[in-house]
Amino acid sequence: MKQKRYFLPESEIPTAWYNIQADMPTRPLPMLDPVTREPVTVDSLSEIFCRECSEQELNFSDRWIPIPEEVREMYTYYRSTPLVRAYGLEKALGTPAHIYFKNESVSPVGSHKLNSALAQAYYCKREGVTNVTTETGAGQWGTALSYAAKLYGMDAAVYQVKVSYEQKPYRRSMMQVFGAQVTPSPSMSTRAGKDILTVNPNHQGSLGTAISEAVELARMTPGCKYTLGSTMSHVSLHQTIIGLEAEKQFEMAGEYPDVVIACFGGGSNFSGIAFPFMRHNFEGKTKTRFVACEPASCPKMTQGTFEYDFGDEAGYTPLIPMYTLGHKFMPANIHAGGLRYHGAGAVVSQLMKDGLMEAVDIQQLESFDAGVLFAKAEGIIPAPESTHAIAATIREAMRCKETGSEEVLLFNLTGHGLMDMASYDKYLSGDLVNFEYKK
Amino acid sequence: MKQKRYFLPESEIPTAWYNIQADMPTRPLPMLDPVTREPVTVDSLSEIFCRECSEQELNFSDRWIPIPEEVREMYTYYRSTPLVRAYGLEKALGTPAHIYFKNESVSPVGSHKLNSALAQAYYCKREGVTNVTTETGAGQWGTALSYAAKLYGMDAAVYQVKVSYEQKPYRRSMMQVFGAQVTPSPSMSTRAGKDILTVNPNHQGSLGTAISEAVELARMTPGCKYTLGSTMSHVSLHQTIIGLEAEKQFEMAGEYPDVVIACFGGGSNFSGIAFPFMRHNFEGKTKTRFVACEPASCPKMTQGTFEYDFGDEAGYTPLIPMYTLGHKFMPANIHAGGLRYHGAGAVVSQLMKDGLMEAVDIQQLESFDAGVLFAKAEGIIPAPESTHAIAATIREAMRCKETGSEEVLLFNLTGHGLMDMASYDKYLSGDLVNFEYKK
Repeated sequence: MKQKRYFLPESEIPTAWYNIQADMPTRPLPMLDPVTREPVTVDSLSEIFCRECSEQELNFSDRWIPIPEEVREMYTYYRSTPLVRAYGLEKALGTPAHIYFKNESVSPVGSHKLNSALAQAYYCKREGVTNVTTETGAGQWGTALSYAAKLYGMDAAVYQVKVSYEQKPYRRSMMQVFGAQVTPSPSMSTRAGKDILTVNPNHQGSLGTAISEAVELARMTPGCKYTLGSTMSHVSLHQTIIGLEAEKQFEMAGEYPDVVIACFGGGSNFSGIAFPFMRHNFEGKTKTRFVACEPASCPKMTQGTFEYDFGDEAGYTPLIPMYTLGHKFMPANIHAGGLRYHGAGAVVSQLMKDGLMEAVDIQQLESFDAGVLFAKAEGIIPAPESTHAIAATIREAMRCKETGSEEVLLFNLTGHGLMDMASYDKYLSGDLVNFEYKK
Repeated sequence: MKQKRYFLPESEIPTAWYNIQADMPTRPLPMLDPVTREPVTVDSLSEIFCRECSEQELNFSDRWIPIPEEVREMYTYYRSTPLVRAYGLEKALGTPAHIYFKNESVSPVGSHKLNSALAQAYYCKREGVTNVTTETGAGQWGTALSYAAKLYGMDAAVYQVKVSYEQKPYRRSMMQVFGAQVTPSPSMSTRAGKDILTVNPNHQGSLGTAISEAVELARMTPGCKYTLGSTMSHVSLHQTIIGLEAEKQFEMAGEYPDVVIACFGGGSNFSGIAFPFMRHNFEGKTKTRFVACEPASCPKMTQGTFEYDFGDEAGYTPLIPMYTLGHKFMPANIHAGGLRYHGAGAVVSQLMKDGLMEAVDIQQLESFDAGVLFAKAEGIIPAPESTHAIAATIREAMRCKETGSEEVLLFNLTGHGLMDMASYDKYLSGDLVNFEYKK
């Protein structure tokens, strides 16, 4: 019988995250304080983030950051996630490529987002924080944070992008089951939201607007800190547990990836699965390709410009040196809500600038074609975000079919799409459309 | 670090199912042909079921039925499912009991139902069947069968109980993603459906009515066989993979269950987790208690009568010796659609009659209370069906708290509730009500 799934024993679950910032060939430009335009410091970041995360954000010296025992203990409730050989997908494509995926959808909340939510909630709690706030798009991050906050006895307030709030109402229900307060964004509950709604009462929201509202709430509320699900280096750091596990699991399988593929919103899951493998490229030991997959309608990596820009619509966050479509860019209403973000994180942007990774655009219909093919072959209905990685993997697998190459392809299945069935309904009934990028 | 999850290596996944029919102290009365009232035979059963399943149904001699290599191969895509120590729930309850659950929700389609769907679809394919049909309540079974049929290249037609079809529309979408044709039942597409709708045009459906329609379609369609998700012995047989795995996993944990708890609709998941442990009771080696948990509004085990009755509303199925509320009984519209069934299988009914197991009733609100408590403690939102087992487990755990007893409790988490968030919404908004049993 062919082995399909690789698990690590609990003792083998990594004890430290990999901090790529200590290893990069080119160190990213500093983030700048939005008011003073001076490089941010741990102190200035700590005004909105908890102190430990602020320190991690600016740590350029330690390659390995120990995972607190309490967080690792919580990880073992769902980690290791399986590394799966996708024999069903290979057969459906008739490709000689060996396709693997890291199945983060088995996390109790259904996505990789819990890896960082547990860490951020733990640090907040340790520092005496009583309330956390955040933004969420499709809701994967908001769900993870809601559960993690509840675990540590904190209240959570989540601003969910309005279009996703309406597209996937049951995400709200999930967050509410975990005891969170959920507000569609933009809302009238913050200055940033009011300003946006004054200009456009029908504004559908974006991650940029929801971040503004959450940051503002954190600043105005005693005992409250802001947490976020992507873009920042400390979030990518926590997500490296994915790639570190995969590395060990590939040893069990006796293979090593030629191509690592992940969907791309702010960069957290891409970083998580790619960075640990990337370090062997830095060392000159491997020549793995790394492919970030973004929606064609929100293509900051392939069509954006590299410049200092804000992480949010209102300009509350530090200025970040990044590939961006502009912080006022309003993404089309695609169903991959987690990818509707105008910018990439500073680290990923620098890696892209240095030619150490690649990016591709995927249209909405191609991504859903891939998602349904995958569901029929492997039984798992993927999140609309993840379908972008699947589509890119299929492109690579078909290239391997043409050349007869037995390359090893690895993609990250970030989450399941069970909260996104309305999107699949639209796809099946032929009502789903492509969106071109418009500046 | 405390170990929380126990997995079996692929080599340890059972190679045979346990056939309790070869071991029971009292052999169940025979099922009777609905027309001749003679005991059913493999030939008569084969008119609606595939031949292999018909043979398994009437096998009272072989304790172990080998799992075909092709089915075991598919099992390894998601099995073993983890046996999980529910430390979070124990802590929330403050109980000295050791609570474990078998997490069947990690199956790709989200429930234990795939264990039998794969087997039934495989046998049908091997016998040259081109189309399969079935009933489904909440949709867990229909989803599993849709995926399994697709895997083996067959078409699937699913009759879904109308009230569930409307309560959880995204279940339909899941089945459609897997390529199935889904019809709300009762429908005008069958004689049975027409007869029901003629009497009551607003009939909300029940598993009994949906079975009638599916059986009729199978009888009328060349190359088509009927498959079902519960009640029959061959379905229970396939589900014993759950308990057989759990037995090995408990060895890894160094414990053994004092109480085994499962929700109860037709009996498939209860049988699956209980029967393998029950055989040690038969041997006099153990005194494990087995608790079937049914909805208070559909209490065939605690308030039904033991008699010959049909498995469906129209009277197409064999007469089964069982605890029943009557095959015309119309269950209340509770959200645990998988438990809205009037009867119990012949084997379970005989075990109940012989005092070898117990049954309890759980009201809808108590079950959702338990589900939300579990979600907050363990991060997994359970299916409304599973919440009945959780509620009963909590009752046992609180008894242990009173007596200071460190009993080992095992319950079956049959599936997740991510397709049931509308039910949780109703619960959270206070709109969910209890239903009393009315004859």
